[in-house]
Amino acid sequence: MSIKEMVLEKAKNAKQASRILAKTSTSAKNNALNAMADGLLSAKDELKRENEKDIAYAKEKGLSSALIDRLTLNDKRIEAMANGIKEIVALPDPVGEVTRMWQRPNGLRIGKIRVPLGVIGIIYESRPNVTADAVGLCIKSGNAIILRGGSEAINSNIAIANILVRSAMDAGLPEGCIQLIDITDRQAIMEMVKLDEYIDLIVARGGLELIKVVSENSTIPVAKHSAGICHTYVDADADLQMAEDICFNAKVQRPGVCNAMETMLVHKDIAHSFLPRMIQRFKEAGVEIRGCAKTKKIVPDIIDATEEDWWTEYLDLILSIKIVDDINEAIDHIMTYGSHHSDAIVTKDYDRAMKFLNEVDSSAVYVNASTRFTDGNEFGLGAELGISTQKLHSRGPMGLEDLTSQKYIIFGNGQIRQ
Amino acid sequence: MSIKEMVLEKAKNAKQASRILAKTSTSAKNNALNAMADGLLSAKDELKRENEKDIAYAKEKGLSSALIDRLTLNDKRIEAMANGIKEIVALPDPVGEVTRMWQRPNGLRIGKIRVPLGVIGIIYESRPNVTADAVGLCIKSGNAIILRGGSEAINSNIAIANILVRSAMDAGLPEGCIQLIDITDRQAIMEMVKLDEYIDLIVARGGLELIKVVSENSTIPVAKHSAGICHTYVDADADLQMAEDICFNAKVQRPGVCNAMETMLVHKDIAHSFLPRMIQRFKEAGVEIRGCAKTKKIVPDIIDATEEDWWTEYLDLILSIKIVDDINEAIDHIMTYGSHHSDAIVTKDYDRAMKFLNEVDSSAVYVNASTRFTDGNEFGLGAELGISTQKLHSRGPMGLEDLTSQKYIIFGNGQIRQ
Repeated sequence: MSIKEMVLEKAKNAKQASRILAKTSTSAKNNALNAMADGLLSAKDELKRENEKDIAYAKEKGLSSALIDRLTLNDKRIEAMANGIKEIVALPDPVGEVTRMWQRPNGLRIGKIRVPLGVIGIIYESRPNVTADAVGLCIKSGNAIILRGGSEAINSNIAIANILVRSAMDAGLPEGCIQLIDITDRQAIMEMVKLDEYIDLIVARGGLELIKVVSENSTIPVAKHSAGICHTYVDADADLQMAEDICFNAKVQRPGVCNAMETMLVHKDIAHSFLPRMIQRFKEAGVEIRGCAKTKKIVPDIIDATEEDWWTEYLDLILSIKIVDDINEAIDHIMTYGSHHSDAIVTKDYDRAMKFLNEVDSSAVYVNASTRFTDGNEFGLGAELGISTQKLHSRGPMGLEDLTSQKYIIFGNGQIRQ
Repeated sequence: MSIKEMVLEKAKNAKQASRILAKTSTSAKNNALNAMADGLLSAKDELKRENEKDIAYAKEKGLSSALIDRLTLNDKRIEAMANGIKEIVALPDPVGEVTRMWQRPNGLRIGKIRVPLGVIGIIYESRPNVTADAVGLCIKSGNAIILRGGSEAINSNIAIANILVRSAMDAGLPEGCIQLIDITDRQAIMEMVKLDEYIDLIVARGGLELIKVVSENSTIPVAKHSAGICHTYVDADADLQMAEDICFNAKVQRPGVCNAMETMLVHKDIAHSFLPRMIQRFKEAGVEIRGCAKTKKIVPDIIDATEEDWWTEYLDLILSIKIVDDINEAIDHIMTYGSHHSDAIVTKDYDRAMKFLNEVDSSAVYVNASTRFTDGNEFGLGAELGISTQKLHSRGPMGLEDLTSQKYIIFGNGQIRQ
């Protein structure tokens, strides 16, 4: 069978399964999810054995130790995967929720009700736990899922998917509702993103290159989970101690994730009082500082920031700093260089707080808090399939509700149009 | 300037304008919309003169009288365009609406607020009044707009757009917020749909061919307003008089629109009592009937329906009829051949009504009412930019709310992540 035929067959099977899954009860879905979690826990040895193949290959290829760490499955991480699925069991089922209902003068009752999207294709890189998270979220929201993970985790992904499929089938979910594309050839992606007849949404989660390839070739709507070039603007009227704590947290608490701060913008009036101590604290935490010319005048012992820096998501202990004349320059900088992910202002001034909230067009806009909170769990939405940086359908953390669509239901008693 | 450069420049200007428009007050937007409506009314002669060029060209090309009628602007239609804009003035501004807000245990207050999408590109065919509707809806929802109408209405569209731009500028809206691509070369579409850096949403409104070209080439999310293959299923327990009135209305009241019925499904148990009178009434109204073999046995004097018929949106006084064994066959037929637009069941049976509502995955699912109600005004949403038959972002009539995105706003007082 060619790659084209193989992908097509999987997509057709998923579509068929999705119709049954859409009418599967919450308790049946929860039972299956619990079975999947238990399945992972009782297959720890199998999972670790398969994972070792990926690790060996990664070492052979000379991948960085950080990447190898992300790839590694151990008992603790397998337990975390299983717990992730159990947490999804505890979340409310979005399917069937009537979000609004009203009556028209002619007596028609019109409502909007949440329904599954149908079939969700997810194209992702690296960490194998995404496989379990994605399956859990899709099944709970009544969607069939087609997984296409990266080649670096292929053995782990196959092992995880096999256990999940086996558990789901034993628990009575429709055959075909979880599909893994186990071919690492990029052609599989190219075929997959053209199957708009069978797949309703493509979630692309990975580096810029992957996102670009998917969005340029897909005839299916794509939810992009891309770069996070996040800013914190320290206003002239900031509480400087609060600003220091927030900026430190946003950069240092977990620098490798998309909601970490990459650029700090500082109002010129407080730059002298704020920057020396702040930069000192960053340096003590091992952060490399790249500053604009004005910053260098205040703290000379730093690297020069270039135009390139403002466009860069370091995902590392590196920070660029720019001194700005006012809030307008800060907002302009964010709108020009930002990735519309998460941006914060620290200020005691009411009007500027409101201006920042209104004018910064990002998925999440903060006043006086760390950008690190942009996350499904931290927002109280439960687990997330990723963080959308686009404007259509969903922005920010994509939870169960974001994996549904809303259809209109209309109750009449014989109404016809005049 | 090449087509590429021209389209790029317009898109860049629109993006720039969109940032100002996003913070323009409701009253300023409403003032501008009123000015635009007045502008149209005081330019009737100019509009009719330009429209005549399109009509002359259409006649020369031998277009059907129905198409020429759709293209024609007269005093009444110009007044209707102006009134359409005034109705949009009366609708509430969706921008700034906080749709939800909650507090987290750490004291963070998290809310979702409606914001404009940014720049909306609309690619459409035929009727020139779409130009005014689209501009009205986009401006009210704070979005800049790029219009790309069909070649058959190019002179009318240029004239309408010029008046709208002039009125908007006089009323103080930001320059560049309304852009018309006045080149009918298809290359302009190809360039436009690649400008994902500047355009946030493409609305494609027209025939299947146009939708296909746009969605295959666009790197921007596309809202599709495509075929309406709508069904009415007359159940065994239908009130037959009600069923007759609903089906007649759904087919005959305005056959050329997307929410008109194309296929009627009839339960076998009531086919003998229902069909002869129903078909008689259709025939008297000039409807051509194409029936399945079982239908022909009951009413012989009709055309044979072929497989092709189930896939066809007639947009005309033609109806296909199929007799089904039960509701499952009806739902299967709709899920196989339908376009997920609007589908209805007529029944007195509670369980089957609920089953139909749950299992038919269309934008609008009706019990005991005509599918002709799928329309922004009829639903009470106000004007619409089109009717979405896709699942992402918006389904069904797209009104002002559907032209917005929701971002998260977070109010903190120094929270950092642990």
